Amino acid sequence: MAGNSFGNLFRISTFGESHGVGIGVVIDGCPPNIVFDEVFLQHELSRRRPGQSNIVTQRKEADEVTVLSGVFNGHTTGTPIALLIYNQNQRSGDYDHNVQTYRPSHADFTYDQKYGIRDYRGGGRSSARETAARVAAGAVAKMLLAQHNISITAYVSQVGNLRLEQHYSQLDFANIEQNPVRCPDPIMAQKMEDLIREVRKQGDTIGGVVTAVITGVPAGLGEPVFDKLHAQLGKAMLSINAVKGFEYGSGFDGVHLRGSEHNDLFYFDEHLQRIATRTNHSGGIQGGISNGMDIYFKVAFKPVATIMQPQETVDSAGNAAIITGKGRHDPCVLPRAVPIVEAMAALVIADFWLMR
Amino acid sequence: MAGNSFGNLFRISTFGESHGVGIGVVIDGCPPNIVFDEVFLQHELSRRRPGQSNIVTQRKEADEVTVLSGVFNGHTTGTPIALLIYNQNQRSGDYDHNVQTYRPSHADFTYDQKYGIRDYRGGGRSSARETAARVAAGAVAKMLLAQHNISITAYVSQVGNLRLEQHYSQLDFANIEQNPVRCPDPIMAQKMEDLIREVRKQGDTIGGVVTAVITGVPAGLGEPVFDKLHAQLGKAMLSINAVKGFEYGSGFDGVHLRGSEHNDLFYFDEHLQRIATRTNHSGGIQGGISNGMDIYFKVAFKPVATIMQPQETVDSAGNAAIITGKGRHDPCVLPRAVPIVEAMAALVIADFWLMR
Amino acid sequence: MAGNSFGNLFRISTFGESHGVGIGVVIDGCPPNIVFDEVFLQHELSRRRPGQSNIVTQRKEADEVTVLSGVFNGHTTGTPIALLIYNQNQRSGDYDHNVQTYRPSHADFTYDQKYGIRDYRGGGRSSARETAARVAAGAVAKMLLAQHNISITAYVSQVGNLRLEQHYSQLDFANIEQNPVRCPDPIMAQKMEDLIREVRKQGDTIGGVVTAVITGVPAGLGEPVFDKLHAQLGKAMLSINAVKGFEYGSGFDGVHLRGSEHNDLFYFDEHLQRIATRTNHSGGIQGGISNGMDIYFKVAFKPVATIMQPQETVDSAGNAAIITGKGRHDPCVLPRAVPIVEAMAALVIADFWLMR
Amino acid sequence: MAGNSFGNLFRISTFGESHGVGIGVVIDGCPPNIVFDEVFLQHELSRRRPGQSNIVTQRKEADEVTVLSGVFNGHTTGTPIALLIYNQNQRSGDYDHNVQTYRPSHADFTYDQKYGIRDYRGGGRSSARETAARVAAGAVAKMLLAQHNISITAYVSQVGNLRLEQHYSQLDFANIEQNPVRCPDPIMAQKMEDLIREVRKQGDTIGGVVTAVITGVPAGLGEPVFDKLHAQLGKAMLSINAVKGFEYGSGFDGVHLRGSEHNDLFYFDEHLQRIATRTNHSGGIQGGISNGMDIYFKVAFKPVATIMQPQETVDSAGNAAIITGKGRHDPCVLPRAVPIVEAMAALVIADFWLMR
Repeated sequence: MAGNSFGNLFRISTFGESHGVGIGVVIDGCPPNIVFDEVFLQHELSRRRPGQSNIVTQRKEADEVTVLSGVFNGHTTGTPIALLIYNQNQRSGDYDHNVQTYRPSHADFTYDQKYGIRDYRGGGRSSARETAARVAAGAVAKMLLAQHNISITAYVSQVGNLRLEQHYSQLDFANIEQNPVRCPDPIMAQKMEDLIREVRKQGDTIGGVVTAVITGVPAGLGEPVFDKLHAQLGKAMLSINAVKGFEYGSGFDGVHLRGSEHNDLFYFDEHLQRIATRTNHSGGIQGGISNGMDIYFKVAFKPVATIMQPQETVDSAGNAAIITGKGRHDPCVLPRAVPIVEAMAALVIADFWLMR
Repeated sequence: MAGNSFGNLFRISTFGESHGVGIGVVIDGCPPNIVFDEVFLQHELSRRRPGQSNIVTQRKEADEVTVLSGVFNGHTTGTPIALLIYNQNQRSGDYDHNVQTYRPSHADFTYDQKYGIRDYRGGGRSSARETAARVAAGAVAKMLLAQHNISITAYVSQVGNLRLEQHYSQLDFANIEQNPVRCPDPIMAQKMEDLIREVRKQGDTIGGVVTAVITGVPAGLGEPVFDKLHAQLGKAMLSINAVKGFEYGSGFDGVHLRGSEHNDLFYFDEHLQRIATRTNHSGGIQGGISNGMDIYFKVAFKPVATIMQPQETVDSAGNAAIITGKGRHDPCVLPRAVPIVEAMAALVIADFWLMR
Repeated sequence: MAGNSFGNLFRISTFGESHGVGIGVVIDGCPPNIVFDEVFLQHELSRRRPGQSNIVTQRKEADEVTVLSGVFNGHTTGTPIALLIYNQNQRSGDYDHNVQTYRPSHADFTYDQKYGIRDYRGGGRSSARETAARVAAGAVAKMLLAQHNISITAYVSQVGNLRLEQHYSQLDFANIEQNPVRCPDPIMAQKMEDLIREVRKQGDTIGGVVTAVITGVPAGLGEPVFDKLHAQLGKAMLSINAVKGFEYGSGFDGVHLRGSEHNDLFYFDEHLQRIATRTNHSGGIQGGISNGMDIYFKVAFKPVATIMQPQETVDSAGNAAIITGKGRHDPCVLPRAVPIVEAMAALVIADFWLMR
Repeated sequence: MAGNSFGNLFRISTFGESHGVGIGVVIDGCPPNIVFDEVFLQHELSRRRPGQSNIVTQRKEADEVTVLSGVFNGHTTGTPIALLIYNQNQRSGDYDHNVQTYRPSHADFTYDQKYGIRDYRGGGRSSARETAARVAAGAVAKMLLAQHNISITAYVSQVGNLRLEQHYSQLDFANIEQNPVRCPDPIMAQKMEDLIREVRKQGDTIGGVVTAVITGVPAGLGEPVFDKLHAQLGKAMLSINAVKGFEYGSGFDGVHLRGSEHNDLFYFDEHLQRIATRTNHSGGIQGGISNGMDIYFKVAFKPVATIMQPQETVDSAGNAAIITGKGRHDPCVLPRAVPIVEAMAALVIADFWLMR
């Protein structure tokens, strides 16, 4: 128990369930005197909220945030920042069919096994709604990092079999927010959008990959041997609903290279006036510590478990049952996962930043 | 700083450098009255130690462990268990060439940047020698888990392009320790061994993948929303030297499936007399909590950075230099990574076991 | 930074400032299926709130609590319980005189030094208003402990020089809530009340001692060698505003006894059918672990810093200034400190209970 | 479980039992490039070790420390510093009489209740021998603090009824190490020594008070609202064997003052060129944060439980028994407690120093 906090020096504790009163977060350890940009905070939440385009879930949530504490005269004070987002849909009526029946590949069964009680209203705490609190906290972390010119950008690089093959440096990140998929390649974005529409028509869902790039991180962040920078990033990403895998730098593909190919040779960069590496298979991290190069990683998301097709399952007594999703059909979480990945990355970097 | 502890209730703190006096671990939170099997502990260490076969590094380390505390009359007492492994090779002479020069894709540069001081004796704390302490601690965790019939088995499933395609259930785990590669398929094991020998001849190195399976974990382990079982497993694996990626269950391949294919349908298993799932794309974990099915995951290792070929690099002043590995050539860490992966998995499961 | 959480398995994170939007707490790790008694929760808050009698501060705060999460169908769910108390007085006008001037023995100066920013509205985060969140969280801890017949009772045992000399076992705890001082001896309570009134007339303040007794704790709680039961209790008490000292069992008076007098002799109690001690100088804790006897301790509170008399001080530029308290005069915090002491004790015991 | 670590950023984990192989500590988070003074480290241990004078226990322990890791070329490296002290007396023969019988006011009974196993060799983990590891770690913390001109001095201010009435500023600290009691007043020291000798003759023991003063701490250390500087100091002191009480600044005596007397008035100190307070009832801490004035506190120690007189007790089956201490008679722990109090204070300050 007590697994709802993340980070050490920049530490968040989240709370709230789908269909409860609201969700929120307490941020403890944010330094004082950071300009607190509520417009930016609200904007980040709008990137995650349902209903923002017609390829994501149409559930209505305005996700307006209230700042309860920690901000005074437009600046952080160094005391805990509490953020609250009221739920608009607090009715539990929609979910009566789930009271007894376990939805396949949801957390209904495991929560019931663990807690001996189950909040059947839209998944309760296990709902992806919980990630709104992460995005809110991540926005504050971004405010801190922006002061130090650290920037985090994520995008959808794969949906089903549609995979963007270009290296991130070949892409124009300005395109990311120009299409509902959040893929920086307009042509691929259109293909992905078409695929998602097709999947939606079938009442089915589809997964994919989010790629993220962090620039501006100085050398020296990360705490070996267990709290390595990429280990903490990996944990952060894997803690997001529906994530099945994480890799950084060369990742799983790196196993195809020999050491002589994979090693990143050092040189003195005259332009940067510092030591750099010619390649970056290391993904900006060596020995668990940032080396000043770009940090990049990929996160794999499985297809959403709620589908609009009938599925076999059991109820809590073990009796066979049939369940069909209704209401909120989210054919592909990938577009909305982009700000969540960014938020978790921002939280990790902010935490290590304060430890440096 | 202070990143050398792992776990919460079953908590380890490791110490020690390559070529220092020794390495070791303090285990805090191990329950009392566990039969303490020193023979098993030593055996686990022998699976990790250098020189155990002719395809791994030939550096000589006996890795004999001394139990300093926490064990009385052959049982754990509930007080901290301190384990110490003296280093046999404490000479730093072999490493003089590294004093000024950064080895490519090692942690020399980042440690220097972070700490402003560098232990140039074989990598110091960043050396993979540190993992011996993990294996020792993991052996104790295994003693605890064995009492509850929880079992962890890892094996090499890929070396370079040689990839074992069978599902783990189709393999005979009894074969794993029968060959120096630790691959359960004897034919593939031979191919992998041949490949590693070839790579070694070239003075080069090669990476691969370790697959692990955990059986016997009851439903209910894991602490959402941040300390999900797989998130903690992922962090544990990513904290191991040379690891570049982690995936569990369907992993990165899961993105190719639709929700209707990926969902694990529940049924009541008459034989087990409990609810189970027909498939296990979830990898035994749903919503971050174990569901009683097998837990399985994959870990990607990059090729070892130390190669016996000359490479371009710089010294700490930024001057161009050439460096060539000498001494301990470890063409492939995969065989020795197997017990390390098992150890870290055991630590994670033991920790969640105590939290249940 | 990040010092606003307390506990490990029963973990709270508090937030909020005096005169901000509100204050609150996130409780992470409360077990599921505890009957959640909102009436009791509100009652505990009413014991702490200002204005409850005419010997405490007359500031008006209703302290009505809103349950934001973690409770479903009248029971805890095992997920985070977030509680929010809106502030009624959010005006900062009353505090304009403090903007530049440091109130003696308040935290104005140290917050300014630490954070470089100061929330001058009634002390901001350093205000005793923060303790309302502790009482709310403690009420939930009490709900848990009540299920296991663990009971915590505190009372005022000293105000200024008026000191209750009886041992706690000679007192009738039913009297505690019968007088505004919360002293179980009616005659002494009247004397204390008179003294507080006199001090109030002088625009001055007075300190005292709260004694607490915990019954029903089984042997075995506490985690040596650092997280000893009394060490954690001590930290909990010392974290309360205005506390200057903590002692348990024989405390500071124990130094007057010889070992032969102080030692608590063991005997087998035929009535209880278990081993007990004839005396209890140990205060129910030996070696940092509860021994099954009553746990008791004392907490010293200094006089409140805000007085209605002019005092010399300086402003933030170091210029001499005169400051006189106005508005909320709280001549003695002791009566209101009673529920706070109980709450912090409940949080400590609940945490160790879950660790047992 | 897992209560053997202390601190967050300067974090120690201790291990070892009386009569086991040895005791030790892992220090994680010590900054790099601190000059590591082994002579000083050994000297600090010699102040704590048994047999240093004829008024403390005569048990023979050389307490020679081995540095296992974290130090290279005479400096800390930023990696974990492991320190090991072998026990000279590993025989358990002396303690056979304790196997079945619970020593009064020792931890025998509670350890047995908690762990279901008991290390009867001299108290095992509950032995005060454990504090040697604290002193070793504290010596390293002192090395760090010395670089920043922070100094910690403790002394014996009371033994039984003999109480030093002078304020610490009236004492000559140079006298502390000039007598076996560690009392800075030579006349009082002699009286205390005489009293301890008398108590020893009776086979009895006596308690007392250690006072400590920390100078040079800048304003701003401490992490409200729970990790207040004095709360963490209190926990640190209360975690030491035999401690029954802690107070800082005015402490329990502060309850006799009115607010108008207790408040520390601010003024601008022309000599120091900074804001200071005219009195220091606050003990250098306001709102849980250091204010730049001296920090001072008192720690109460009960008389040692082991006495050379027969005492009634029970065995583990509850049968009545008589026990008489033999071997190591330590009539008064106070002189040896002085370096332990200093060590724990150093650990607390070092931790907050790194957080600032």
